[in-house]
Amino acid sequence: MTDEKTLQSLDALYNPKSVALIGASREEGTVGNGLLKNMLGQTMYPSKGKKYEGKIYPVNPKADEILGQKCYHSVSEIQDQVDLAVIMVNSKFVPLVLEECGKKGVKTVIIISAGFSEVKNYDGEKQLVDIAKKHGMRILGPNCLGFLNCTNGLNASFAPSIPSAGNVAFVSQSGAIVDAVIDMVTTYSFGFSSMVSIGNQCDIEITELIEYYAKDPNTEVITGYVESLRDGKKFIEVCKEVSKIKPIVLIKSGKSSKGSQAAASHTGKLAGSHEIFEAACKQAGVLLVDTIEELFDISLVAACAPKLEKNAVAIITNAGGCGVLATDYCEDIGLDMCEFSQETFDILNASPIMNQTYSRHNPLDIIGDAGPARYEIALKCAIKDPNVYGIIVLETLQTTTKPLETAKVILDASKTTKKPIICAIIGGEYSKPGIDFLEQNGMVVFTEAQKAVKAMKFLLNKR
Amino acid sequence: MTDEKTLQSLDALYNPKSVALIGASREEGTVGNGLLKNMLGQTMYPSKGKKYEGKIYPVNPKADEILGQKCYHSVSEIQDQVDLAVIMVNSKFVPLVLEECGKKGVKTVIIISAGFSEVKNYDGEKQLVDIAKKHGMRILGPNCLGFLNCTNGLNASFAPSIPSAGNVAFVSQSGAIVDAVIDMVTTYSFGFSSMVSIGNQCDIEITELIEYYAKDPNTEVITGYVESLRDGKKFIEVCKEVSKIKPIVLIKSGKSSKGSQAAASHTGKLAGSHEIFEAACKQAGVLLVDTIEELFDISLVAACAPKLEKNAVAIITNAGGCGVLATDYCEDIGLDMCEFSQETFDILNASPIMNQTYSRHNPLDIIGDAGPARYEIALKCAIKDPNVYGIIVLETLQTTTKPLETAKVILDASKTTKKPIICAIIGGEYSKPGIDFLEQNGMVVFTEAQKAVKAMKFLLNKR
Repeated sequence: MTDEKTLQSLDALYNPKSVALIGASREEGTVGNGLLKNMLGQTMYPSKGKKYEGKIYPVNPKADEILGQKCYHSVSEIQDQVDLAVIMVNSKFVPLVLEECGKKGVKTVIIISAGFSEVKNYDGEKQLVDIAKKHGMRILGPNCLGFLNCTNGLNASFAPSIPSAGNVAFVSQSGAIVDAVIDMVTTYSFGFSSMVSIGNQCDIEITELIEYYAKDPNTEVITGYVESLRDGKKFIEVCKEVSKIKPIVLIKSGKSSKGSQAAASHTGKLAGSHEIFEAACKQAGVLLVDTIEELFDISLVAACAPKLEKNAVAIITNAGGCGVLATDYCEDIGLDMCEFSQETFDILNASPIMNQTYSRHNPLDIIGDAGPARYEIALKCAIKDPNVYGIIVLETLQTTTKPLETAKVILDASKTTKKPIICAIIGGEYSKPGIDFLEQNGMVVFTEAQKAVKAMKFLLNKR
Repeated sequence: MTDEKTLQSLDALYNPKSVALIGASREEGTVGNGLLKNMLGQTMYPSKGKKYEGKIYPVNPKADEILGQKCYHSVSEIQDQVDLAVIMVNSKFVPLVLEECGKKGVKTVIIISAGFSEVKNYDGEKQLVDIAKKHGMRILGPNCLGFLNCTNGLNASFAPSIPSAGNVAFVSQSGAIVDAVIDMVTTYSFGFSSMVSIGNQCDIEITELIEYYAKDPNTEVITGYVESLRDGKKFIEVCKEVSKIKPIVLIKSGKSSKGSQAAASHTGKLAGSHEIFEAACKQAGVLLVDTIEELFDISLVAACAPKLEKNAVAIITNAGGCGVLATDYCEDIGLDMCEFSQETFDILNASPIMNQTYSRHNPLDIIGDAGPARYEIALKCAIKDPNVYGIIVLETLQTTTKPLETAKVILDASKTTKKPIICAIIGGEYSKPGIDFLEQNGMVVFTEAQKAVKAMKFLLNKR
């Protein structure tokens, strides 16, 4: 585990009172121009949430003013304390500028500039680490997109926008994927605590950030895109501890042999054996997903649903066909369907609310004419049934379906139990009132039965 | 293959001039009431497209008028020719009513009523078949949701709505899934030629409908949800021929042992060995998918993209990480990535449009600052490259990305080649102008790299 003092040094990255932008530029379309605009809240696409309230110092030896901001010729010219410096100059000038930052007493630098280990310039990268160490500075990067703290509006990146504040932290070894995610989540309802493009990880790396997030009050779920690790053993040790407190959901790419070659050319690092990584993650309580969509779906489920204590799940459905599809997929991925207890059937058989052609087995097909009351009694039975450890609720829109009322029943039921309940409402516009109600109340709703099954499977590995 | 005359007899189902609704009811919330409303265009949720223009004859011995329509006490009371009758009475009265329809000269009946083979009442169902045969009538059902012809507005079902007209035909062994699909596609941009809930398939069954769709000018893709087949051998023979003309995309449920049990209790029929079915489908050119979402995604791709002639695909991306994820997934599902020819690299290496840090291998990472011109040259090279048989284009929104302009480049490129091009634009609101442009121009756009890879794999099996 990283010592307390080292972790505290990351505060200058997350909450700097002043930021110097070395390589700020007047020229439209350059990183030095885009990053200054982002710091000023003038993002290319509309930004959600706060504007950064700290001090911003553009630095460029050839300019006195950029975008209406006074420009400094060097970082040493700035009178104020500089907590964070963003370096965007050509790689050959980076050591010089970094040395200057050290002398100025800058606490942390983000090196956006490329041209280091990713192009096999290992010596150049080592030099950066040495300079930073000498001055007690921390480095994020080099070769990264930058850093976004959505809770205070700090956008020290050249991303197209900054997403709204929320409780998901995202760490990525690909800057482009940070951008893609910012665009993707425009159609989602959650927000981020912060997003970090870690680049070559010459100093600050993913493991340390995971430790930081464990203590960060703004973060409730830790997500990440990982191609390679600097120290696999430490990563697993840390995740083992952190996953007890907050879910960690990762997408690991470079699994296949061709993918691992592609990853090597992408970040200059070997991906390592995926089998070993996968096994270690499982042991450490890290949830490994396959797609970016899953990364956020599963992290939201992990954040709001309890652990599935035993592999024994009930499916409740108003569409027999969807029940069959879900059952197929359970068997595919190794999620076990429970046998209901006799008591459950005794109650349902005696109930006037049930359509007595209902299936007397799991999946519990409560028939197409099921309204909220029938979902309610089925949920009550499943919650009480000692053979049931998790409940997947499927709903399709039939003429008698009441999406909003059934949604209320599902939410109320979920509040009475420690068994995870996961919904798939297989529909669109007509089911939307129900979907929206559940999402607004913190539940994740899928629109495919199989996605709900997969999410439930992940809850088996939750700590 | 089914004879021409038998196939023609289905015309009374698809294009009846007059429809009798036997069991039409005044009572709100009943099938007999809902179905009459549907026929009158008064659906529960707003209907898109045409209103049915044929004659509608409600039949109920106890009513003279329902919903402002004159009501007949029996089908024989109707003076006019009746092409199609919908039977919604209690199962015990169905034989009597069916006999009456036969005498009246009704051509086809839809039997909504349940209570036959699905509850092991095999004799009752055989009786229906015998009566129909005697009178030369055809039966859809029993135990079904009904039939929707979206091209002429005929909604002889108790579905919540009718989707807009389009070129996709959907045949389903689950009525509830027809309803779910009607709701799902409210957020899609395609429409249906018709939707058929086949119920117990005592007479008209899926194979015959596939043959009908082969000749139906309104249908370009045939989709279906299947749990069991009546005659597997005939099904395969028919599909072998039809898939040469129009893509057939099916979702087969009851694959697993538990799923097959669930299917048996759902439709009263055994699902049969999935391995055998899968192998036969492959041989017959049927594309088998796993989820309802995939059913329509893949059918749209199959309808608009050419066959992948050889398993050798190029990936073009502006995000290295997404390229790695796509590469991993290619290996996962057996889609082979090609080696580019030297000429491709010669052209790209000499081009001032390229960022010369681009990856010199497949996936072709054309770097985050790629604009439309760079996508254009990369696409031109891949189209010309004799080693490339299909192209997957990935785009994420970086600050220099021009979604709409790049979309135009992709569409133009697709018009110059017989190689399939499939796009994944991994983004949301900001990428929307590009996504919308491509979709409006008939291309399918995915928002996950893996979905594009999977779709491309299906094109290998296209006829």
